[in-house]
Amino acid sequence: MYRTHNCGELRPSHIGQQVTLSGWVQTIRDKGFMAWVDLRDRYGVTQLLVNEEKSSPELLEKVRSLGREFVVKATGEVIERISKNDKIPTGDIEIMLTDLEILNASKTPPFTIEDESDGGDELRMKYRYLDIRRSPVQQNLIFRSQVAIETRKHLSGVGFIEIETPNLIKSTPEGARDFVVPSRMNPGQFYALPQSPQTFKQILMVAGMDKYFQIVKCFRDEDLRADRQPEFTQIDCEMAFVTREDILNTFEGLTKHLFKSVLGLEMADFPRMSYDEAMTRYGSDKPDIRFGMEFCELNDIAQGHGFSVFDSAELVVGICAEGQAESFSNKDIKDLTEWMQRPQIGAKGLVWIKYNSDPNDEMGRFRSSVSKFYSEDQLQTFADKMGAKPGDLMFVLSGEAEKTRKQLNELRLEMGRRMGLMKPGEFKPLWVVNFPLLEWDEESQRFFAMHHPFTAPLPEDAEKMMSGDHETLKNLRANAYDLVLNGVEIGGGSIRIHDRALQEKNFQLLGFTPEQAENQFGFLLGAFEYGAPPHGGIAFGLDRLCAVMRGQTSIRDFIAFPKNNMGRDMMIDAPDGLDEAQLKELNLKVEIAAKS
Amino acid sequence: MYRTHNCGELRPSHIGQQVTLSGWVQTIRDKGFMAWVDLRDRYGVTQLLVNEEKSSPELLEKVRSLGREFVVKATGEVIERISKNDKIPTGDIEIMLTDLEILNASKTPPFTIEDESDGGDELRMKYRYLDIRRSPVQQNLIFRSQVAIETRKHLSGVGFIEIETPNLIKSTPEGARDFVVPSRMNPGQFYALPQSPQTFKQILMVAGMDKYFQIVKCFRDEDLRADRQPEFTQIDCEMAFVTREDILNTFEGLTKHLFKSVLGLEMADFPRMSYDEAMTRYGSDKPDIRFGMEFCELNDIAQGHGFSVFDSAELVVGICAEGQAESFSNKDIKDLTEWMQRPQIGAKGLVWIKYNSDPNDEMGRFRSSVSKFYSEDQLQTFADKMGAKPGDLMFVLSGEAEKTRKQLNELRLEMGRRMGLMKPGEFKPLWVVNFPLLEWDEESQRFFAMHHPFTAPLPEDAEKMMSGDHETLKNLRANAYDLVLNGVEIGGGSIRIHDRALQEKNFQLLGFTPEQAENQFGFLLGAFEYGAPPHGGIAFGLDRLCAVMRGQTSIRDFIAFPKNNMGRDMMIDAPDGLDEAQLKELNLKVEIAAKS
Repeated sequence: MYRTHNCGELRPSHIGQQVTLSGWVQTIRDKGFMAWVDLRDRYGVTQLLVNEEKSSPELLEKVRSLGREFVVKATGEVIERISKNDKIPTGDIEIMLTDLEILNASKTPPFTIEDESDGGDELRMKYRYLDIRRSPVQQNLIFRSQVAIETRKHLSGVGFIEIETPNLIKSTPEGARDFVVPSRMNPGQFYALPQSPQTFKQILMVAGMDKYFQIVKCFRDEDLRADRQPEFTQIDCEMAFVTREDILNTFEGLTKHLFKSVLGLEMADFPRMSYDEAMTRYGSDKPDIRFGMEFCELNDIAQGHGFSVFDSAELVVGICAEGQAESFSNKDIKDLTEWMQRPQIGAKGLVWIKYNSDPNDEMGRFRSSVSKFYSEDQLQTFADKMGAKPGDLMFVLSGEAEKTRKQLNELRLEMGRRMGLMKPGEFKPLWVVNFPLLEWDEESQRFFAMHHPFTAPLPEDAEKMMSGDHETLKNLRANAYDLVLNGVEIGGGSIRIHDRALQEKNFQLLGFTPEQAENQFGFLLGAFEYGAPPHGGIAFGLDRLCAVMRGQTSIRDFIAFPKNNMGRDMMIDAPDGLDEAQLKELNLKVEIAAKS
Repeated sequence: MYRTHNCGELRPSHIGQQVTLSGWVQTIRDKGFMAWVDLRDRYGVTQLLVNEEKSSPELLEKVRSLGREFVVKATGEVIERISKNDKIPTGDIEIMLTDLEILNASKTPPFTIEDESDGGDELRMKYRYLDIRRSPVQQNLIFRSQVAIETRKHLSGVGFIEIETPNLIKSTPEGARDFVVPSRMNPGQFYALPQSPQTFKQILMVAGMDKYFQIVKCFRDEDLRADRQPEFTQIDCEMAFVTREDILNTFEGLTKHLFKSVLGLEMADFPRMSYDEAMTRYGSDKPDIRFGMEFCELNDIAQGHGFSVFDSAELVVGICAEGQAESFSNKDIKDLTEWMQRPQIGAKGLVWIKYNSDPNDEMGRFRSSVSKFYSEDQLQTFADKMGAKPGDLMFVLSGEAEKTRKQLNELRLEMGRRMGLMKPGEFKPLWVVNFPLLEWDEESQRFFAMHHPFTAPLPEDAEKMMSGDHETLKNLRANAYDLVLNGVEIGGGSIRIHDRALQEKNFQLLGFTPEQAENQFGFLLGAFEYGAPPHGGIAFGLDRLCAVMRGQTSIRDFIAFPKNNMGRDMMIDAPDGLDEAQLKELNLKVEIAAKS
């Protein structure tokens, strides 16, 4: 028996008991006549004590031989601590050691096992088993586990069945790149790892399973950006005989349950907003509505006053940063302008108007980068339209409408960050609905699915889809929805097409020949002929959901063994070469093309 | 809104209510002046009614246009049924239709959607979405979902954290064949899909996660036997600071919880048996202990009487089939002997002794295939030793000990089946412990790990492992255990090695060079140097566990989308060829070797 209690468990009520703990040596303090050891496990830290008076010389010697991260089994009596530590739950007691067994020694770890580690990213990934011993990482993994079990409890409770779909499926060229798996038994053929269980969950609806969910690994062979992983986890759901309303209510219920059960937070009903409205008010289909600073369109007052930049623009649009007139120096605004002009954002410039807080300021009511084009009274109309008060700072962008909105969205978010408006611990969910169904790509002269090829149009747009002209098709709205939380898309889904003719039409619009559609999705088209019910679903990104709920930005911190930007696992050093025999058995030969 | 209730929900208490149901048309009965439709969904079947008196001609017409598996939305009033059907929970009511909407038509399905289908295996796999509509398949999937959620609830409740381990890992030549995944970003290199998360769960113990579990997909590229799947699911668990006793108690607790919560059965404490004892008493390391018919070793009484077959045998061993003397004709015994002589079993012959039920039988007390070698009194000593009574039938096998036990195990199981001793609904779990650690392979002149290379020897055998001679090594016992249920291994695990030197020694015994060990498992050996705690674990086969709990034999029936014996998914038709561009991007070329 290695322990009677864990290292986070003992309290004054245990005083006088003989206990045994096992764990890792966090620190040792040796005062000569006495010594203390902080013993750590997943549950907490408990202080062990030896002294010359009560402990044998052998025991003292053994304690002094310990090093950081040694694994020990410690036996002794729970006693009251003289100098209590109110920072830890076990801080009222300590253990007067009577026996100590070293279960395993440890080399000195390459970085400190503390909340704030001194190890760099690479080192921590290589020694991930030491990194996970750090409480913040451990707590993230525990949090993720809680979110997963609460998701399952809730969905099971409302009649969902968790069904595992296969991981060895078929490659489809549409969408992101698949990881593939050569089949030894079927020479020259390959499985693909699923990018999502999309078609399988639809098949399960055709199969009458009614309510499906699965917390499931998905795979995408993409060039990895900072916060992407080749394998990631979805909470994947599908329901039959539902309208959009049923789905939004069901998964709003799930989200509320998660916040309540895991964070202890009650959430109010989630507002809904159309894609068009979100773009107009925030320039984003995933607005962070923890703060206002909404877009204000200014064409009517900005144009026609001789400022050619505005006059020639499709859209003139601004935001008002409350109370920031004084906080932003000319230098600050110059820096911000340069930040907006970086290629990632690509603004041409940044017009600003400061509403002076002192109405008697000798410089007048406003200072602005466009003072020579607009009189004080004209600037006042800007302020009035944007609801600005003395002390506020207005920013105005102009140009092609879509592009300008995207740029202003970046500025709004940056101002939100700088002004501390993205409050940690505050959660503002939002359903964004009625996305465009199809996006026209000029270059390839074809439509792309904004969501995916199985998304249904809004019921009132279905007829138009079958027979509409090009312009009509561009304006079709999808029966799709995203759940946005604090500006992050944590889930998205749609009502699906369940009619073979409509699905075929969609494939055709997306550039599939009938043969390609049949070859890749024939099983689904076939299934639609045997009594497919109306159905729809949603998928949440579990990694991202956890990060947002914990107020963190990196999903990597919620994955036990993440890969780096080259898709490598630094700890096990994968991927790796295969030996020739294995390749031969798979009927494969490696041919590395010279880099172009 | 597609429904107010589901098809399994309405009872006499709903009579008089207006309701809407959606589902599939199971059957239509048309009596001319009235017609009935059985409407089916996952929850049950409800009868819909139209008649000439109360229903409009249009509605009657619409009902008559329905076909099997049409999807409809039906609205009407709940009324009391005149001829009640006590076979279904909704049998007291029916719906007087007022409105019917056809949501989707259906072609005539290629097989009947009934509990007993007329579809063959191939057809049912190709149209899996129709097969799953059948209640037995649907119930199996729901059962599996229940087992999974109850597993998670129980393990979370006792402090386990579910942690996802990666699916893209590193190939290891030891054990079964890996599926591999070419890495586009790392040309010429491959990931492997995990055969189990073994090393990762051990790493999580080194990382201090203390109690880990995961319900996880695993992958093995094996030539598929009848009941193997290339992807299968494990309940995978690991605990730190535990002895074998802790693990057996924890997972006996899980198993009892599953039987209680899912089947409503209370289980008594699980007996334990050593591997050696199981082999001696049953000739199997996974004995079905629902019935006795234990082995009785007969060398002392069988040898030395001039029957050379027995005299020259290492082992003479028998079983006694209670009350079967009359039931087995000479022809039956001849058939059974031939069954035993098939190459799969390989017995040379089958000695039988019938203990006549009539003590005054003119043929004497016994009839036997070896009467000419043994007198009645000598046969009586066989009967006495085997505890046989008048009316019993004894079988005796002889030969090389291990082989003979295995043959007799097959005979015992066959007799158990024929005698109806494997009672469905009766569950007899058994822990089998103290397996051999290493198996010597004469051909390759090396040891193989009976469990896997990370299994620790029993504590008292650890020293012998470091320094023992060949004979000592062959007799090392592993600190490993299997959970056997009704003769099926549903779980297995071990205490692991947590000491670098012992692990290196084990790799060496298993034929690894130090370089190979370092290359494949260097991260684990490294982790053992930074404070690895004692740890151990277990894994259950979820597919098999579900099958055994439901008294079924095929795991395929518990997998939503299983693959056939060639590893093919017949529904989506995978695996499939890849186009050249995709192969080129992966730096691969297909080279199919001519069949030898």
